[in-house]
Amino acid sequence: MDDCLFCKIIKGDIPSQKVYEDDNFVAFLDINPVTPGHTLVVPKKHSYNVLDADEETLCEMGKILKKISQAICRGMGTDSFNLNQNNGKIAGQVVEHLHWHIVPRYPDDGLALWPGNPYPEGEDVIVAEKIKSAF
Amino acid sequence: MDDCLFCKIIKGDIPSQKVYEDDNFVAFLDINPVTPGHTLVVPKKHSYNVLDADEETLCEMGKILKKISQAICRGMGTDSFNLNQNNGKIAGQVVEHLHWHIVPRYPDDGLALWPGNPYPEGEDVIVAEKIKSAF
Repeated sequence: MDDCLFCKIIKGDIPSQKVYEDDNFVAFLDINPVTPGHTLVVPKKHSYNVLDADEETLCEMGKILKKISQAICRGMGTDSFNLNQNNGKIAGQVVEHLHWHIVPRYPDDGLALWPGNPYPEGEDVIVAEKIKSAF
Repeated sequence: MDDCLFCKIIKGDIPSQKVYEDDNFVAFLDINPVTPGHTLVVPKKHSYNVLDADEETLCEMGKILKKISQAICRGMGTDSFNLNQNNGKIAGQVVEHLHWHIVPRYPDDGLALWPGNPYPEGEDVIVAEKIKSAF
């Protein structure tokens, strides 16, 4: 798409530090990394996010994430990383082109997972029912 | 595996609020949700995390994440969600069985993405080279 930042990076119209490219995917360093080596994995075929991506892209994405994560771990000297993917504005999606974050992790890097709390009694059953009935 | 919490949930030896199940995957509510509807998606075939998962599982995972995310959005009344997946102890992986988090998001739920900062000048080239040379 003409006005899409990542489509422009894919075409090479905007420079990036690419670490991987094949016929269907490109991976490049996030310009505002949360840790060194923070990489974005982007399908060349434009979709907004997971909800409108086609099955072939999502299947290949699963495999390519493993391949690129392995290289990031080897190259950056760690065995730990987070895969994060934001869908929709409320979830913090800024660029409107499907992309996955691979965030390599290091001891004492200061990042903390979101805190969780148990459901009030009986609320889990109600929530599960809402989701089950939506398939 | 006998001592794996999620293998026990898959077998039904430990109760859970299941929202989806097919031949290869199960999805159930996280007992400590970061938001209501926070769901874990787990392949029945045991692997530690993405790095030792087989290609077939990762391919199917991509597709099943879309299907379950759609139901969570419909059921919980939102269009936004994060997909998160933690690999290795430093990344916060607690249960040693591959699992994805689907976290539905709501206005003013208080969750914030990790902050990022630009690389010092020239450091991005060095980091990209480390990763490229590790494929």
